[in-house]
Amino acid sequence: MTNLAMRSPPTTGADLAGERDRLLASYAETRGRTEGLAAPLSAEDQQLQSMPDASPTKWHRGHTTWFFEAFVLEPAGIDVVDSRYAYVFNSYYDAVGARHPRSQRGLLSRPSAAQVSDYRRIVDDKVTRLLSAADGDQLASVLPIVELGLAHEEQHQELLLTDILHAFSESPLRPAYRAVAPPSGRPSAPDPLRFVPCAGGLREIGAPAGRGFAFDNERPRHKRWVEPFALADRLVSVRELKAFIDEGGYRSPSLWLSDGFDFVRARGLASPLHSSYEDGRLNVFTLAGMRVAGDDEPVAHVSYYEADAIARFLAARLPTEAEWETFAEGAIVQGNFSDGVLRPQPCTGPCTGPCTGEGASGVRQLFGDAWEWTQSSYEPYPGYQVSRGALGEYNGKFMVNQMVLRGGSCLTPKGHVRASYRNFWPTPTRFQMTGIRLARGVPA
Amino acid sequence: MTNLAMRSPPTTGADLAGERDRLLASYAETRGRTEGLAAPLSAEDQQLQSMPDASPTKWHRGHTTWFFEAFVLEPAGIDVVDSRYAYVFNSYYDAVGARHPRSQRGLLSRPSAAQVSDYRRIVDDKVTRLLSAADGDQLASVLPIVELGLAHEEQHQELLLTDILHAFSESPLRPAYRAVAPPSGRPSAPDPLRFVPCAGGLREIGAPAGRGFAFDNERPRHKRWVEPFALADRLVSVRELKAFIDEGGYRSPSLWLSDGFDFVRARGLASPLHSSYEDGRLNVFTLAGMRVAGDDEPVAHVSYYEADAIARFLAARLPTEAEWETFAEGAIVQGNFSDGVLRPQPCTGPCTGPCTGEGASGVRQLFGDAWEWTQSSYEPYPGYQVSRGALGEYNGKFMVNQMVLRGGSCLTPKGHVRASYRNFWPTPTRFQMTGIRLARGVPA
Amino acid sequence: MTNLAMRSPPTTGADLAGERDRLLASYAETRGRTEGLAAPLSAEDQQLQSMPDASPTKWHRGHTTWFFEAFVLEPAGIDVVDSRYAYVFNSYYDAVGARHPRSQRGLLSRPSAAQVSDYRRIVDDKVTRLLSAADGDQLASVLPIVELGLAHEEQHQELLLTDILHAFSESPLRPAYRAVAPPSGRPSAPDPLRFVPCAGGLREIGAPAGRGFAFDNERPRHKRWVEPFALADRLVSVRELKAFIDEGGYRSPSLWLSDGFDFVRARGLASPLHSSYEDGRLNVFTLAGMRVAGDDEPVAHVSYYEADAIARFLAARLPTEAEWETFAEGAIVQGNFSDGVLRPQPCTGPCTGPCTGEGASGVRQLFGDAWEWTQSSYEPYPGYQVSRGALGEYNGKFMVNQMVLRGGSCLTPKGHVRASYRNFWPTPTRFQMTGIRLARGVPA
Amino acid sequence: MTNLAMRSPPTTGADLAGERDRLLASYAETRGRTEGLAAPLSAEDQQLQSMPDASPTKWHRGHTTWFFEAFVLEPAGIDVVDSRYAYVFNSYYDAVGARHPRSQRGLLSRPSAAQVSDYRRIVDDKVTRLLSAADGDQLASVLPIVELGLAHEEQHQELLLTDILHAFSESPLRPAYRAVAPPSGRPSAPDPLRFVPCAGGLREIGAPAGRGFAFDNERPRHKRWVEPFALADRLVSVRELKAFIDEGGYRSPSLWLSDGFDFVRARGLASPLHSSYEDGRLNVFTLAGMRVAGDDEPVAHVSYYEADAIARFLAARLPTEAEWETFAEGAIVQGNFSDGVLRPQPCTGPCTGPCTGEGASGVRQLFGDAWEWTQSSYEPYPGYQVSRGALGEYNGKFMVNQMVLRGGSCLTPKGHVRASYRNFWPTPTRFQMTGIRLARGVPA
Repeated sequence: MTNLAMRSPPTTGADLAGERDRLLASYAETRGRTEGLAAPLSAEDQQLQSMPDASPTKWHRGHTTWFFEAFVLEPAGIDVVDSRYAYVFNSYYDAVGARHPRSQRGLLSRPSAAQVSDYRRIVDDKVTRLLSAADGDQLASVLPIVELGLAHEEQHQELLLTDILHAFSESPLRPAYRAVAPPSGRPSAPDPLRFVPCAGGLREIGAPAGRGFAFDNERPRHKRWVEPFALADRLVSVRELKAFIDEGGYRSPSLWLSDGFDFVRARGLASPLHSSYEDGRLNVFTLAGMRVAGDDEPVAHVSYYEADAIARFLAARLPTEAEWETFAEGAIVQGNFSDGVLRPQPCTGPCTGPCTGEGASGVRQLFGDAWEWTQSSYEPYPGYQVSRGALGEYNGKFMVNQMVLRGGSCLTPKGHVRASYRNFWPTPTRFQMTGIRLARGVPA
Repeated sequence: MTNLAMRSPPTTGADLAGERDRLLASYAETRGRTEGLAAPLSAEDQQLQSMPDASPTKWHRGHTTWFFEAFVLEPAGIDVVDSRYAYVFNSYYDAVGARHPRSQRGLLSRPSAAQVSDYRRIVDDKVTRLLSAADGDQLASVLPIVELGLAHEEQHQELLLTDILHAFSESPLRPAYRAVAPPSGRPSAPDPLRFVPCAGGLREIGAPAGRGFAFDNERPRHKRWVEPFALADRLVSVRELKAFIDEGGYRSPSLWLSDGFDFVRARGLASPLHSSYEDGRLNVFTLAGMRVAGDDEPVAHVSYYEADAIARFLAARLPTEAEWETFAEGAIVQGNFSDGVLRPQPCTGPCTGPCTGEGASGVRQLFGDAWEWTQSSYEPYPGYQVSRGALGEYNGKFMVNQMVLRGGSCLTPKGHVRASYRNFWPTPTRFQMTGIRLARGVPA
Repeated sequence: MTNLAMRSPPTTGADLAGERDRLLASYAETRGRTEGLAAPLSAEDQQLQSMPDASPTKWHRGHTTWFFEAFVLEPAGIDVVDSRYAYVFNSYYDAVGARHPRSQRGLLSRPSAAQVSDYRRIVDDKVTRLLSAADGDQLASVLPIVELGLAHEEQHQELLLTDILHAFSESPLRPAYRAVAPPSGRPSAPDPLRFVPCAGGLREIGAPAGRGFAFDNERPRHKRWVEPFALADRLVSVRELKAFIDEGGYRSPSLWLSDGFDFVRARGLASPLHSSYEDGRLNVFTLAGMRVAGDDEPVAHVSYYEADAIARFLAARLPTEAEWETFAEGAIVQGNFSDGVLRPQPCTGPCTGPCTGEGASGVRQLFGDAWEWTQSSYEPYPGYQVSRGALGEYNGKFMVNQMVLRGGSCLTPKGHVRASYRNFWPTPTRFQMTGIRLARGVPA
Repeated sequence: MTNLAMRSPPTTGADLAGERDRLLASYAETRGRTEGLAAPLSAEDQQLQSMPDASPTKWHRGHTTWFFEAFVLEPAGIDVVDSRYAYVFNSYYDAVGARHPRSQRGLLSRPSAAQVSDYRRIVDDKVTRLLSAADGDQLASVLPIVELGLAHEEQHQELLLTDILHAFSESPLRPAYRAVAPPSGRPSAPDPLRFVPCAGGLREIGAPAGRGFAFDNERPRHKRWVEPFALADRLVSVRELKAFIDEGGYRSPSLWLSDGFDFVRARGLASPLHSSYEDGRLNVFTLAGMRVAGDDEPVAHVSYYEADAIARFLAARLPTEAEWETFAEGAIVQGNFSDGVLRPQPCTGPCTGPCTGEGASGVRQLFGDAWEWTQSSYEPYPGYQVSRGALGEYNGKFMVNQMVLRGGSCLTPKGHVRASYRNFWPTPTRFQMTGIRLARGVPA
């Protein structure tokens, strides 16, 4: 998911001095985090593009910078650093002009990684000065764009990691992005799936108007009738995946959607992306290099098709996005994210508070660890309105043939995710950090 | 849409003699209609397969016959006509065995069309004798299968027509399936679109349990919250399509979903399938041969992408399937269907009664004429259960990456369609008789 | 090979009455033979096109007829039967106008096979009357075109058979074109390959000017220096093929050209086309249906790549076309051809006379049975001149990326082949009746 | 052309001390030249792979080094630098082991360009020490391998340049490899093509045994009968190309081979690779950046199909390789090569001596400037023998579906080319420095 969305109308009448400080701090932190994520990578690593859906590290760094130049600095009359960068670093904004073909971003030896670093420094300096000197009206007008740009950059921080993982997986030397200790916290006792019920009824989902940043696809908040349901208290684990494989799951058409079985059969798939299963061991290639996955770790890098089939194998189904959001509402957003100590693998973390009042204790991994496929297609909410101008040009443009995912992953920056947050990918997608949360209907 | 679905539990304790007569009459009528539709076609015509998604006439005739042999006669211990036909005429039932590759059905010079006629006659005779001799229990058990087989055959009657239309469109001689007079009923006065409002609220959609035949994807009936909306009183017409084309609609990315614009650009599309637009005239190839479309005729043969873009151009959107069904509930199913005098083109027909109490008078083409794309993905209803056995094997198997269409078309047999009926096709589909009904939100 | 070529300058000053009778007899015989070859096939069979490189029987019948209409009747001012046939039945003559796409010939349900029969009858009647009424000059001018048309029709007679074999091989019912007894004549004793030497030197190859019909690619006759060589006394047999397979030939890169190994590996090939090898038996699908090949039968349906690899496995190589023609010069053209009793499989037949004076007795299958791949690319002979007009348009147009084959096959009509005859196909071709003649160098 | 070939039997009984010095000097010069060619390129530039047929600069540098390690050092029992490099830098030697897929060489961020520099230094040091310490027998045995390795490295020097040209042509910034002054030497007077006759007869072509290094595909020297012919005194120029384009050459099927016209039509080609033709100017992208080509410059970057069509347009044809070599025999190898002052564009240079005694004065560009397509397929010479072992594994492996080119180009190192030298590429190849020499037959 890399689309953008206009912020909801900015808060008005606030203390703009405080706003300015908050914004400058947020800008510095977010922009600096991108550079931190790129730091372990050489200029040559940063140029890799291993498939059309992925982009080079260097391009992510340039594209997010171009965003601030095109939508914040240029409208303020500030000269661009290099007029050719608009062509090189535009992603899909037709209204802004022509762009370099997506599949050929790996052919950009120029500008160099060092030149991109320069580009970032110059733009950061200009933005910082612009924000520092802005009066009240100016700040109010530019603030939603900057907030949007930072949320956009956070999305690319996650993509930077999934893309370099894919690139390194194609390298014969199989380099590690960063050596880290394997996830710990294996339970000493068996850990059976437990389903936590939720009553449903006439509920509301979506981001409330005027309360903090949200993408426009999260709005408007609206009513949904939700039948009683239950969600699993944790993600599907490697142990359950092994059972699926051992019992011939990848070769059993009755477990699959028709498209899904065609998908795995045509490609000869027999385990999630970045993994192979041999002699009872699931070998996985991760940002920390090759390792053997622990049985209690959450499954990752599965397509929607695999998530759907594994759910069916486990006598369950995927949740709808309305169920997921109803369940998650009010929960504290905490878990395994990409900030702080990066553990670039899903692991076992607590989350408290889901489905208020219905036994949330012990529910794990609702936020972070792995994105959770829902069975809901990515569609506009009732009353959804497309924004105007280049930023709004594509807001609803991807709302077809994609599925919604919820909850964030261990590669998502902390603070980026909300209960109402809608990620979306086509059904064959496996290179993202995608996992499985099970759902079931319950008697009313 | 060619999937099958188990009937809901059969009616019990009814007058089985009457049931038998009704069933025999229905069987004879439906089976005879297929032969009537194939009658204008030579053995060579009946062998044509012009693309993998279409099938030869002869194959449709054989496949629908094999259905009764495999699911009615064989379970009753009756010998098959030719053991090789199970391979030739199976479509996608993995549980029943291997099958001839779909894309190679046009290579079946054997069995000949004459042999398929023999096959149909023999199977019809066997089924008729089985039904005539069945006692109460036997009839109760076989009745839902026969009803399903007849509904299935009606679906193939529509496909037989769309497929031969496509095949003839690829012939350099451009033959007509059947010469008919062009649609009449041009209004003498302008015919502006009128939007008929509907209050929405907490509604129910889906086929009620136990009231007549319905596919399982129409069940269970369940609650939906529907915001107030309005539907157009007729389908989008050729006049509106021309305005879209004249104003550069096919070349304006801002009107399209991203996938949709890629779709039309990659294929160089500039008008609906089977049509070309030159000098202000829309030339269309129809089952009656080449003709010029009248301005008030409904648009047909558009993909979901085109329907979505044209709706956006007309400052509207496509309806959700819940809106459509809410609107259609209680309406009388009448219009331009494939029975009686076949007019193999959408035209102008009345429909009364939609959205009870809210000004339904004058709403046209709600049923028949052209299938209406909705903006709803084809997903299982809450509580949907997959049936058991071969017939149930694939019931929910297609519920991904497809959109729901409603209302039937001029190529659909009368009696096949209901307000709860869900047709479904992938977004690029254009060879079906697909049209556009506009929707808009309204203030609550 | 389906290209055409202008006849060499017509004989002059001959007895035209005798020429007329000969031509009328030849016309009647050749045209009638085509209809005889099509006779076992139903109208539905005649419509089959199982791959873009093949054409339906009906199309071959129409195309060869159109040739006489376009190049004999039209220039004589005689009206065409149906003006649309020029589009339908043109193959590649750009100068004559647009044409139906080659890959879509299987979509021609119209004209029907019966209409094509009518077309042939009418054209035959017109041509016969034209020839009968022609005076000396007229006959002299039309004779080379008619001769060319008949040679062209003989080429399509062979294609008609190879194409229906391929089509039937794709049918799940695996029908036989014609039931015939399997080839007989198994030798009672082992039949080791024997190499017959030929001295070489400064030789001439190519068709001599003015001596009977020849395609222009056989001209001009010209000098070649040929090093001493030897040719095998028979075609490579199934026994030798089995040794190749048994010793892993299809999986040994060192035996193959680089392109060839990519070719068989990408397609997973493990035996010639229309065959499978199981438990020591080579099962082959033939025009007579499925059968088990005898060990002494010649190998057929191999690509150039396989022929080259099998030759290398047998410590030999393929001959050059200069070697082959030097060897064959003066030999009597006799063997297993498609005339008389059609045995649609290569078998064992004698041929006398090759490489005069050097022990030709016992050389077999030099003509007929199977086309023999040479290691010579299809290139123009020194001094080759392209003819003028539509007939000459494409004479040299295919002289790139194809290999020359020599000697005719059991599907070639008798009288079509000469020692100088050059057939040509791209290296991956397997659907033709292609076999292997081995060659070796010898000390001078 | 990147295949290898065993040297002809090494010279025996020579002064090995002198041989050693000569070899050490040759090794140092050739290896150093590669590094000089790579010097203008950054580490990021050196990683670019813009199509499967091209390789990154870094890979060329590593692969040529691996050659010496695998075939010189390892057989001498010397440890490898990094055991993984055999996988990374092997190109197509099946006998040596598995290899990295060719199309994914651009994904090798590791090893870095700096690591490849280290690799080269270490291997150079080891080879130098090995050669310096070798006794007579050892040197005699290793000398042909080292000579072959150096000839192989010279081939990759040319590829390094053609590949980076292609990569830069795909960059939106269109960088120059090296800024050089445009070619000079425009003649002040018109420069009509002049055809220089050659008598032909029974000639010999191919490298003589035992006289200096030659690839095995140049051997054995053998007799050919050559009809009288004439070659043009210079390459086809931009002026003649413009006439071809202006008169619709790219859209005239009658000028083209059938495959060739399909090729240009399917790709929409209208000028040579790396060029566009607008308003009478041919804009070309070169290693020196974008420039306008002068009318008298030789045409470059044409496929075989274009060369053949342009020759036909100019009422000529391409030479056979026997004609070319007969013509070139005895000529002094001089012209525009990649050594000394690199002018990375074909230009106008003299060559003396072709076709002895028949008016060679004034013949230009016979060597250097641009490779000259011949109409001869790349086939083994009579009596050609494949060498043994890994080095010989593929010697004849590419002898199918390729055409021979002669004479070298401005990107070929001086000393690499001979009159008997056979380059070869498939007919669609345009990214090489390929040009056109015309030929004609002449009366005997």
